Amino acid sequence: MKITLLTHTPEPVKTIYIACRTCYSKTPPSEMGDVPQEKMTKLIRHTMESGHHSVLEHVTFSFAVEGVSRALTHQLVRHRLASYAQQSQRYVTYEEGTLNFVTPKSIEATALKTYNAFMAESARVYEELVASGVPAEDARYVLPNATVTQIVVTMNYRELIQFCRLRLCFRAQWEITEMTHLMKKEMIKVSRFLGNYLQPKCQHLGYCDETEPCGKYQFPPESSVVKAHRKELEL
Amino acid sequence: MKITLLTHTPEPVKTIYIACRTCYSKTPPSEMGDVPQEKMTKLIRHTMESGHHSVLEHVTFSFAVEGVSRALTHQLVRHRLASYAQQSQRYVTYEEGTLNFVTPKSIEATALKTYNAFMAESARVYEELVASGVPAEDARYVLPNATVTQIVVTMNYRELIQFCRLRLCFRAQWEITEMTHLMKKEMIKVSRFLGNYLQPKCQHLGYCDETEPCGKYQFPPESSVVKAHRKELEL
Amino acid sequence: MKITLLTHTPEPVKTIYIACRTCYSKTPPSEMGDVPQEKMTKLIRHTMESGHHSVLEHVTFSFAVEGVSRALTHQLVRHRLASYAQQSQRYVTYEEGTLNFVTPKSIEATALKTYNAFMAESARVYEELVASGVPAEDARYVLPNATVTQIVVTMNYRELIQFCRLRLCFRAQWEITEMTHLMKKEMIKVSRFLGNYLQPKCQHLGYCDETEPCGKYQFPPESSVVKAHRKELEL
Amino acid sequence: MKITLLTHTPEPVKTIYIACRTCYSKTPPSEMGDVPQEKMTKLIRHTMESGHHSVLEHVTFSFAVEGVSRALTHQLVRHRLASYAQQSQRYVTYEEGTLNFVTPKSIEATALKTYNAFMAESARVYEELVASGVPAEDARYVLPNATVTQIVVTMNYRELIQFCRLRLCFRAQWEITEMTHLMKKEMIKVSRFLGNYLQPKCQHLGYCDETEPCGKYQFPPESSVVKAHRKELEL
Repeated sequence: MKITLLTHTPEPVKTIYIACRTCYSKTPPSEMGDVPQEKMTKLIRHTMESGHHSVLEHVTFSFAVEGVSRALTHQLVRHRLASYAQQSQRYVTYEEGTLNFVTPKSIEATALKTYNAFMAESARVYEELVASGVPAEDARYVLPNATVTQIVVTMNYRELIQFCRLRLCFRAQWEITEMTHLMKKEMIKVSRFLGNYLQPKCQHLGYCDETEPCGKYQFPPESSVVKAHRKELEL
Repeated sequence: MKITLLTHTPEPVKTIYIACRTCYSKTPPSEMGDVPQEKMTKLIRHTMESGHHSVLEHVTFSFAVEGVSRALTHQLVRHRLASYAQQSQRYVTYEEGTLNFVTPKSIEATALKTYNAFMAESARVYEELVASGVPAEDARYVLPNATVTQIVVTMNYRELIQFCRLRLCFRAQWEITEMTHLMKKEMIKVSRFLGNYLQPKCQHLGYCDETEPCGKYQFPPESSVVKAHRKELEL
Repeated sequence: MKITLLTHTPEPVKTIYIACRTCYSKTPPSEMGDVPQEKMTKLIRHTMESGHHSVLEHVTFSFAVEGVSRALTHQLVRHRLASYAQQSQRYVTYEEGTLNFVTPKSIEATALKTYNAFMAESARVYEELVASGVPAEDARYVLPNATVTQIVVTMNYRELIQFCRLRLCFRAQWEITEMTHLMKKEMIKVSRFLGNYLQPKCQHLGYCDETEPCGKYQFPPESSVVKAHRKELEL
Repeated sequence: MKITLLTHTPEPVKTIYIACRTCYSKTPPSEMGDVPQEKMTKLIRHTMESGHHSVLEHVTFSFAVEGVSRALTHQLVRHRLASYAQQSQRYVTYEEGTLNFVTPKSIEATALKTYNAFMAESARVYEELVASGVPAEDARYVLPNATVTQIVVTMNYRELIQFCRLRLCFRAQWEITEMTHLMKKEMIKVSRFLGNYLQPKCQHLGYCDETEPCGKYQFPPESSVVKAHRKELEL
C-alpha cells in the first residue's frame, strides 16, 4: 500500500482562517492580509470547538491510493462527500503477470499457501477467459476482493475529519484503517495543526460508542469530560 | 436478479406538483388542494422541459435489489446522491451452500464449465478459511466480483432520471443496465407519467455523446433537433 | 407561522428497519415481512446508538413552511442535504395588500410603531416601483428580511436529526428554532419513536459546546457521561 | 461588486489529467510524471465530450465575493455542491455609515431618488433599533434585499461548469450573471483552457431550452447539431 498526497489547496490554514473571519467581520475577505500563524490557528480552534465546521470545507486534499484491494475501495467510495477516480476493471485489461492481490494478516499466519494458490488460479482463469475472447468487463467477474486497484481520492478537510473519526477506529476494517493512518501521516507533513485533528471518534467523543469497544482507547488527559468519565468508572 | 419497489412517497405526481406551484404562486402549499391529474402533469412537464429539475427531488423511491453481483454494487454506490444499505461481507458469514454467483452471458456461451468450477473453488476456499478461524471480513478477500449481494437503494426522482440517463445507455455495463430496466418497470407500475422520463441519455440529448456509440439508438420522430441532425447526416 | 407535514415515506419505522436488517442479514429485503413494532424499534435504537446513521436516510419527510421570513429561509437553505421549492420573488409579483412581514418579539415590545411604519413604507415603495414599470425581480431589492415567504422542504430522517441538533439549540435564531419545534411536533404525530430523537445537540452530546451556553440545558439523568461530568463540576 | 480568486488547487490541468488517466491506465497515479500540456488537455477534452465529468471534481476554486446584495446570495447558496462562508447579519452589527446597498439598473434610470431615500431610511431604522437595545439579529429584519454582504465561495470545477450553465444564461438574474462573468474572468487568468468551458447552457446544448429565450444566443459555427438545427429552422 502506498499513499501519496498528490496536491492540496495552498496555505490551507490561511484559507480556513479567511473563511472563519468572513462570517464575523466587516473586513473584505480579499483584504484579510498576513496574520501571524498563531492568531489564525487560535480562531480556527475556537470555531471548531463550537461545532461550526463548514469553514473547514474550503480546503481540499487529493491522495493517490495505490496497492489497495477492491474490498477497501468498495468501502471507501461509500463516503459520498468526496471525489474519486478509480482504475476501471472494465477498461483496463490485466496482462499476464500484472494482477496483484492483498493478503490479510490473519491469513498470512495460517493459510498463506491455500490463499496464494487460489489467487494464482483466479489470475489464470481471468487470463484464460480474456484470451478466449471474453471481454475484460466480464472476465473480471472471477477477480476476488483481494485484487489490487488504484484510486485518486479528493476530500475537503471537514470530510477528512469525519472520515478519520470512522476509519481510524480500531473497529473499522484493518486495511482501510491502515490507509487512513497513512493519509493522516501525509497530512501532518503539510500541517501538524490540521493533521492532529484527524482522530478516531473516541478521541472526539471522549468515550467509545461502538457495541464492542476495542478497549485500546486511552483517554486523553486534557479532556475534562473524559476525566470526569474516568473518575466515575473508577468509583 | 430481483428488483422490488419497497416503498415510495405517496402520490408522487401531486407532491411534485405542489413543489412546482410553490415557486410561482401565492397560494400556500398546504392548501394546494385537489387538482385534475392532467393539470398537474402539464405543469410538471413544462417545468422539466425548462430544465428546472430541483422540484423532482421531493419524492423518493426505495428499491430492494437482490441477486446482483458485487461488481454491480461497486458501480452503483458511486452514485452519491442516493442512500444505500448493503449486506455486509464483514458482518455476514456465508454458511456452506449459501454463496451464489452471477454469470455473464459472454461466459455462459463459451466457458461455463471453467467458470463454475472456479466459483465452486472460491466458495470452498472461503468456507475452509472461515472454518480454520479466519474472520469473515478477511475470508471474503477470496470472494470474486461475481458474488451475489443484496442492497436497498433510495433515490429521489431527479436522481433516478440522471441515473437512468447513464445506466440505461447500452454502453453501460450489462448487469447494471438490466437492473436499471427493472427499476424503470417498477416505476411505470406506480406512474406511467414518471416512469416514461427514465431514459438513456441519447433520448434526452437527441444524439449519442459516447466515443463508441452502440448504434441502437433510434431517433425519436418528435424531436426537431434530431430531425435536423439526421437531415445533416443524410446530406 | 404554519408548518404542515405534506407527505412522508409510508411506514417509516418499517422502512428503516428493513434498511438496518439488510446490512446484517441473509434474508432478502423484499421478504422482511411483518415484524412486531417493538422488535423493529429495538434494532433501530441499537443501530443509532452505535453511530450508524446511514440507514435513517431511507425515509423522507416533506413540510409546507408558511408565514416565515426571508431571514429564516436564507438560513434554512444553507442546509445542503435537503430539497427546497421556495416562492420566487422574481416570478411572483405582490399586489397591493398582499405583502406580509414577520415581527421579532424584541421589537414588538419596544419599537412596534416604528417597525410597522417602516414595513408599510417598504410595501408602498415596492408597489410604486412595480407600478412605474420596474420588474418585480428588481423592485424586490427594497423588500426587507422580514418579508413573508413560503417554502416546501424535504429532508430525510438522518438530516432531520442533524438539523434539529443545530436548530433546536437555544443559541440558534429564534424564528428558525420556532419552525423546527413545529416540525418536531408534526413528526411526533407520525411516530413518537422517530420524533423523540429530534433533539438539540446538548441532549445528544451530554453537554453544551457553544461558546455562550443558554444555561437552560438540564442534564438527562440517564447519561452516565453527563453524570460524571456533573460530578466533576460539583467538586 | 468585486470578485477575487482567493486560492485554487495548484496545476489544475495536471490534477484533472491524473484523475482521468487513473481510470484507464496501469501507471500508478503518483508516477504520472511530466507530460506536455497539449497531451493533458487532449485527454481532458476527450473525457469531457464523452460526458464523464467526475474527474473534474478533483480541483477546487475559492472566490471572495464582495459588494453583492443579499438578493444575490440567497440565490447563490441554493447551489448545494459548494461551500460558503458568509458575513453574518446576526454576529456583525453595522455601525452608522457602514451599511451599503446595491442598486438595480432599471431603478437607477427611473426611480433613483425614491430608492435611495428608502435605503437611507432602512439604515436609519436599523441603527435606531440597535441603539435602543434591539439585538442585531432582530434589527436586521428591516434590512432590504439590496443590503451589501460578502461571502467566500468554494466550488470544484465540475460544479463551476454546471453553475455557469445556469447563471451565465441571460434569463438568470442580472446581478448573479454579472458575478458569474467576473468569476469566469478570474478563471481564465488561471487557465484559458478551463475558463473557456464556463458557458451558458445554450452553448452546451446547442439550443435554448428556456420558455422565453433571450434571443441573444448566436449558434457557434463549430457545432454540427446546431448547424443542422439552424438548417431546419431556415427551411
